[in-house]
Amino acid sequence: MTQPSDKALVPFVSVDNMMRLVHHIGLEQMITQIATQIESDFKRWESFDKTPRIPAHSPHGVIELMPTSDGEAYGFKYVNGHPKNTSEGLQTVTAFGLLADVYTGYPTLLTEMTMLTALRTAATSALVGKYLAPKSATTMAMIGNGAQSEFQCLAFKAMCGIDTVRLYDTDANATAKCAANLQGKGLTVVACKTPEEAIEGAQIITTCTADKKNATILTDNMVGPGVHINAIGGDCPGKTELHSDILLRSEIFVEYPEQTRIEGEIQALDSDHPVTEMWEVMTGQAMGRTDDRQITLFDSVGFAIEDFSALRYIKNAIEGTDFFEPLDMLADPDDPRDLFGMLMRAG
Amino acid sequence: MTQPSDKALVPFVSVDNMMRLVHHIGLEQMITQIATQIESDFKRWESFDKTPRIPAHSPHGVIELMPTSDGEAYGFKYVNGHPKNTSEGLQTVTAFGLLADVYTGYPTLLTEMTMLTALRTAATSALVGKYLAPKSATTMAMIGNGAQSEFQCLAFKAMCGIDTVRLYDTDANATAKCAANLQGKGLTVVACKTPEEAIEGAQIITTCTADKKNATILTDNMVGPGVHINAIGGDCPGKTELHSDILLRSEIFVEYPEQTRIEGEIQALDSDHPVTEMWEVMTGQAMGRTDDRQITLFDSVGFAIEDFSALRYIKNAIEGTDFFEPLDMLADPDDPRDLFGMLMRAG
Repeated sequence: MTQPSDKALVPFVSVDNMMRLVHHIGLEQMITQIATQIESDFKRWESFDKTPRIPAHSPHGVIELMPTSDGEAYGFKYVNGHPKNTSEGLQTVTAFGLLADVYTGYPTLLTEMTMLTALRTAATSALVGKYLAPKSATTMAMIGNGAQSEFQCLAFKAMCGIDTVRLYDTDANATAKCAANLQGKGLTVVACKTPEEAIEGAQIITTCTADKKNATILTDNMVGPGVHINAIGGDCPGKTELHSDILLRSEIFVEYPEQTRIEGEIQALDSDHPVTEMWEVMTGQAMGRTDDRQITLFDSVGFAIEDFSALRYIKNAIEGTDFFEPLDMLADPDDPRDLFGMLMRAG
Repeated sequence: MTQPSDKALVPFVSVDNMMRLVHHIGLEQMITQIATQIESDFKRWESFDKTPRIPAHSPHGVIELMPTSDGEAYGFKYVNGHPKNTSEGLQTVTAFGLLADVYTGYPTLLTEMTMLTALRTAATSALVGKYLAPKSATTMAMIGNGAQSEFQCLAFKAMCGIDTVRLYDTDANATAKCAANLQGKGLTVVACKTPEEAIEGAQIITTCTADKKNATILTDNMVGPGVHINAIGGDCPGKTELHSDILLRSEIFVEYPEQTRIEGEIQALDSDHPVTEMWEVMTGQAMGRTDDRQITLFDSVGFAIEDFSALRYIKNAIEGTDFFEPLDMLADPDDPRDLFGMLMRAG
C-alpha cells in the first residue's frame, strides 16, 4: 500500500468514537457546550453564507444537503428523513457531516451526525427555551417519544431548569422506552395516556413527531396562556404538527425564515405573517418573551448553522485525543499536477 | 468497542483502494466502462432530478455540492476548485462522493473522487468526442498539462482513435511532466512551445487550464474549420478559456444548459444563444456534427449525472472484492427509536 500524505488524511469520527466522546465529556455537559457554540455563531449570523437546504424528495422520504460557511470554514450535513423507516427497523433520520477549509477547499473533518444531530437539535431547542420559556418553568410535556425525545428532556433539564417531564406518544411502547431511559437521570418522569394529560401543568410543550403529513398534535383549546411551544417535528413541506389557530395566537420565532416558510409550521400561514429570527433575539435586536401570558412558539426546522457549530465543536473536542481515525480520502500527490504519476507509481 | 450493525456500515473506497481498482481493471478499460455508464444514464436524462450545483464561492476558490437522483439512487459529490492551490503544493481539485438508497435514505457508498473525477471527466470528454469529433481524427492538441491532461489523452486514445497528442502549457515543466507520463502508453507525444504549434494538424483541441479568471487560451484565428473543441477548463462564473468570436462560429454542445449558462464558456454569450444538449444527441433527438467543416464545441463544466454514473460504476465494481473497507458512519440501534439507549449502552 502506498503511504498517503498528511494532507490526504481526513480525521473521521465514527459512531463508536462519537459515543465514546459523549461519555468522556458527559451528555448534558456536551449538549450545553454545543449550545454555547450555537449561541456564539447565531450572534454573528451576518457573517454566514446562508441558503435553504437542498432537498431531494421522494414518496419514501427526503434526503437533504445543508451547507453553510463563515468564510473561513465550510460545513455541510447530509441528512435523510424517512418516517416510514421506523416500521422497517431503520432510523427515521441518519446523518453525517463534513468541515472544510475555505482557503484550500480541503476537508478537515468527517463525522457521523446521527448522534450529533440529536445533540445539536436538543441544544438548539434548550438554547431557545432559555430565551423564550417562562423563567419559572419546571415541567415540560414531551409529545412524541422517539429517537430525539430523551435528548430533548435532558437538554431542558440541563439548560432551562426543567425537573419534570410528562411523556406522550401514540405508541405506548415508545413512551415506556423513553421513561425507562430517563430513569436515574434526575428527572421526575410521568408517562401519560393522552396529549391532554401530558400538557397538564406544563410550561413548556415540546412536539417531536415524525409523520410526513399535516398532523394536528396540538389543537387550539389545549394551549393555555404563558406556554412555550418547542415544535421540532414539522420540518418538511406538507409535514406540520400544530393547528393553525395556535399559530395565530402565538408569537412565532424561527431560525431562518427563508427555510422555515417552506418547511415549518408557518407554511400554513400567509407568506408575510410576522416572525422573529432567533439570532435577533440573541443579539438583543428583537424582543423574546415580553409577558407571562404570551404564547411563544419556536417553529424549529433545523438550520445549517447549528450543524456548522456542532461540527466545529467536534473538531476542537477531538484535537489531541484518540476519538477519531485518519481517513485516506484525498488524493494528494507530491507534485499537485501529477495525479497521473501518483496513480502510475501505485501500480 | 460496540459492534455496529451491518446497516450502519458504509463501504468506503480510499484513494489507495481506488488506485488499486484502476490497476486491477486497467485505466483505459475503466475510463471506457465509465463512459458506457455515463452514456446509458444520459440516454435516460428525463428520469433524473437535476439542479445546478450549489457553490460556495470565496476569494480563494469554490466549494461545490453536486446532487442528483434517479428516484432509486441518490448521489452527490463534494468538490473544490482552488487554482491557487497548485502554487502551494496542493491539488486544485479534490473530491469525494456518496451514493444513497432513496427508499431508506441510508448511504450505500462513500468514495474518494479526486481520482474518480479525473476518470469521469476524461470519460465524458471522449464520449462526447465520439459523437462530435471528425471521424478521421487522429491528432489532439492538449492545452493545459495539469492533473487532468494525461487522463484526457488516454481517454481519446481509447475511445476516439487518437494516436498523436500535441502538448502545450504556459509552464514547460507541466508539459515535460505530461510527456514523461505518457511515454510507453501507445501515443505519439509532441511537446510544443506555443498554443499555435500545439494545434497544428489537430482535429481535436482540448483546453484544460485552471485560472479562475476570464482567460483567452484560444483566439479566433487559431481555430480552423472542421475542428472539435473540448473545452473543460471554463467551469466557474468569471472563468472562461475561449475568445467569444470562436463561440459565435461554433455549434455549441452542453451537458445541462441551466448550469452551463452560469459556469461555462457561454456565460460570455446572450442567455438565449442556441445550444444543443448532449443527451439529445445521444438519444437521436438532436443532430451532432452535420458536416466536416463545422466547428463543434463541447462547453463542458461537469454535471452531477456524470458523478452519479461514476459512483454507480464503482459500487458495482467493488462488489465481492476487497477494494473497500466498511465505515462505521451510521448509528443504527436495534430499536430505531432507541438512539439514546444505544448511546447509554456504549457507556
